[in-house]
Amino acid sequence: MERIKPRTLSGFMELLPGDQVLFDRMVSILRRTYSLYGFTALDTPAIEASEVLLAKGGGETEKQIYRFTKGDSDLSLRFDLTVPLAKYVAAHYNELSFPFRRFQIGKVYRGERAQRGRFREFYQADIDVIGDGALDIINEAEIPSIIYRAFTDLGLRRFRIRVNNRKVLNGLFAILGLSECAGDVLRTIDKLEKIGPDKVKAILVDDFAVSADTAASLLSLLSAADPMAALAPFKGKNDLFDQGLEELNTVVKYMAAFGVPQDHFAVDLTIARGLDYYTGTVYETVMLDHPEVGSICSGGRYDNLAEYYTEKQLPGVGISIGLTRLFFVLQDQGLLNPQARTASADVLILPMTEDLSHAISFATALRQAGVRAQLHCEKKKFKQKLSYADKLSIPYAAFLGEDEIAAGTVTVKDLRMAQDAGESKQVTLPVDQAVELLRQRLEQRTAAAPIAESQG
Amino acid sequence: MERIKPRTLSGFMELLPGDQVLFDRMVSILRRTYSLYGFTALDTPAIEASEVLLAKGGGETEKQIYRFTKGDSDLSLRFDLTVPLAKYVAAHYNELSFPFRRFQIGKVYRGERAQRGRFREFYQADIDVIGDGALDIINEAEIPSIIYRAFTDLGLRRFRIRVNNRKVLNGLFAILGLSECAGDVLRTIDKLEKIGPDKVKAILVDDFAVSADTAASLLSLLSAADPMAALAPFKGKNDLFDQGLEELNTVVKYMAAFGVPQDHFAVDLTIARGLDYYTGTVYETVMLDHPEVGSICSGGRYDNLAEYYTEKQLPGVGISIGLTRLFFVLQDQGLLNPQARTASADVLILPMTEDLSHAISFATALRQAGVRAQLHCEKKKFKQKLSYADKLSIPYAAFLGEDEIAAGTVTVKDLRMAQDAGESKQVTLPVDQAVELLRQRLEQRTAAAPIAESQG
Repeated sequence: MERIKPRTLSGFMELLPGDQVLFDRMVSILRRTYSLYGFTALDTPAIEASEVLLAKGGGETEKQIYRFTKGDSDLSLRFDLTVPLAKYVAAHYNELSFPFRRFQIGKVYRGERAQRGRFREFYQADIDVIGDGALDIINEAEIPSIIYRAFTDLGLRRFRIRVNNRKVLNGLFAILGLSECAGDVLRTIDKLEKIGPDKVKAILVDDFAVSADTAASLLSLLSAADPMAALAPFKGKNDLFDQGLEELNTVVKYMAAFGVPQDHFAVDLTIARGLDYYTGTVYETVMLDHPEVGSICSGGRYDNLAEYYTEKQLPGVGISIGLTRLFFVLQDQGLLNPQARTASADVLILPMTEDLSHAISFATALRQAGVRAQLHCEKKKFKQKLSYADKLSIPYAAFLGEDEIAAGTVTVKDLRMAQDAGESKQVTLPVDQAVELLRQRLEQRTAAAPIAESQG
Repeated sequence: MERIKPRTLSGFMELLPGDQVLFDRMVSILRRTYSLYGFTALDTPAIEASEVLLAKGGGETEKQIYRFTKGDSDLSLRFDLTVPLAKYVAAHYNELSFPFRRFQIGKVYRGERAQRGRFREFYQADIDVIGDGALDIINEAEIPSIIYRAFTDLGLRRFRIRVNNRKVLNGLFAILGLSECAGDVLRTIDKLEKIGPDKVKAILVDDFAVSADTAASLLSLLSAADPMAALAPFKGKNDLFDQGLEELNTVVKYMAAFGVPQDHFAVDLTIARGLDYYTGTVYETVMLDHPEVGSICSGGRYDNLAEYYTEKQLPGVGISIGLTRLFFVLQDQGLLNPQARTASADVLILPMTEDLSHAISFATALRQAGVRAQLHCEKKKFKQKLSYADKLSIPYAAFLGEDEIAAGTVTVKDLRMAQDAGESKQVTLPVDQAVELLRQRLEQRTAAAPIAESQG
């Protein structure tokens, strides 16, 4: 028989079981965090009509899209979760209540050039709050607390959420006479961290004819140690700026009440997050020890979610975590927690008799008690079965031989203790007590966070 | 601006938020059940190289497949979770431990003719146990207990798991001299429930030249009230039959130990589940009050999972639940539980003052305590905000006015009681007590099962 090589496409993440457990735990922590803030789950199709998905059209995205025909239909795979949300909200407008708070964690597709750490199928984990006609600034102030909580619960500590406001930037450009070349200036200051202030200044002056004085005062403002104080003197000179500054003040003011520690949050006037979409607060999140990774959670305020589908004005604010890339980075940097449980079962049951009834009943009782139990009845040597448990990191083994069955007992062995202390620790107990013992021991072992940083 | 109609493709399920909560709860119950039996989660790409996915080739499936090119690549969307599993196990053979028990819950794609209740994108929820070279019969005996536990935890009670063994059928055909036309006979007896014994007999005799006597004895055997007793006389006449009968006996023998009540389980000699794939035990699951739905969970034992990718002999046993179709049926039949919580938050917080710090701190404290809290700070009338809570089924509202803030208290209102009893029930408490009260009340309300049958 001719065989086909069982390959997985490049750019498509496919994890081994232990890593998959950690990935899934990240998903479930995010689901829980998002739920705590009153977001409801959505799940939209991965395939949409191309006409619908590409309503906005153009740009880099369209080149990367997976687009194809099936019968008469022109179809595309979604490339983000925002366009499907816009479609959903426009289509179901009358059935939804606003503000509409939704989260969605799902796969999206971009046929990017294959490259290490770049994925063509990847998970995004998004939240958005959509208002009907208006949306209060408090929603923008709440977002950093969700980012903080999410990453903290994942086990990350060394990160910082950077916040800016597009109205502040645009107002500032107007005050400085830079409105005409605002886009060019934005793109240039976006490079500040990468190329440094001198080169940014040179580009502004040489390429975009910004006066040396203006460039200097813009740069000193952008890199001010206390950005809010540096902005204060510009107050009263431009309405948009004043509005933006008030919004930024509100966001900063409520950080403590929202539970975000000061050192995890910073106003950063250099971040812009794209040119034409965001209109108010914008967010980036950086890993302090891995700035090279870039932002691991970004987003912002936009004024009109679904203008391509509806005349309704639907302002919103949202953020997105590129979960597949984040997981790749964590794995690559050795930041996945080796202590996090990845075993597929809590107990491996090894029957030692021909008749399996007692072993099966014990497995059934454990499962009823919420303990994950696996029967190992294959024709293998005892030692091979223990080595199987070891490979899968299963913490307990349970033996039922003739003696145990006659006495209504079971022998439970703690496999990790045996490994750790070089000694075997096992007890023989009546079946119901064994079930209770295992249940209690497992309850005490709360699942460790998926991310573990070394003390840095 | 020209607008595009925000439509969702036909054959693609897109749920409203309340229904999505129930769907997601079904997924999480299945994840939990599968985990209790020691299955580990996998997540494989939705896109595979066509060459890999269609290694087996041919058949109805290939016509339905979503296949397209991107650059030089010939790609296809997966149409089930079994072929990707075969690829995964073959590709990662050296990194896995056998028996390998995996579950996968994910979307698959089939471009079927659009039809009510037929989906082109749908979730399958699969488990498989894969052995390396051999796999003990106990794995086949365990499967019905997983099906039983899964549907029971989902809230379904009126269902029955039907079990048969392909070796028994094939052995029987050999004994009756029907081996040559075994495929035709299988296809015909598969229709027994639909067209009745007389028509089946007529087809066997007229179309496939089965003698009237043989057809009669086959039919009386297939419809025997006690199939195990009816099979007994054939013992010793054919090796394959004897082996199948022993396997079937083992499966039946351990049902009680596995916790499957007798009335939820039946040997049914008429089920075959396809012609060329399964080789031992086969399963179907029917809803007793809705036989028209067909099997809601099916599968069986196969001898060689990955023969198109590897020379390793990898026997397995698995089942699959068509989750999207099941959800459609439950919704359609009114079997979704109206008591199941679908609210996106537990508490809606209504600040009544300009400064929001206290309301925000209260929200933060609730979230720390695991209570899902949403701030409602939009410029809406008080009544509109309560109506919002009502629409979203949020059970509690919390008010913080100037009096509460001055006294360090919060007023908590039980919105469902107000609705149920026609009276308002609210208490004003110190903030920490309010947090504790809400936490406790919510803990007491265990999430109801997603399925609720009427007393039938």
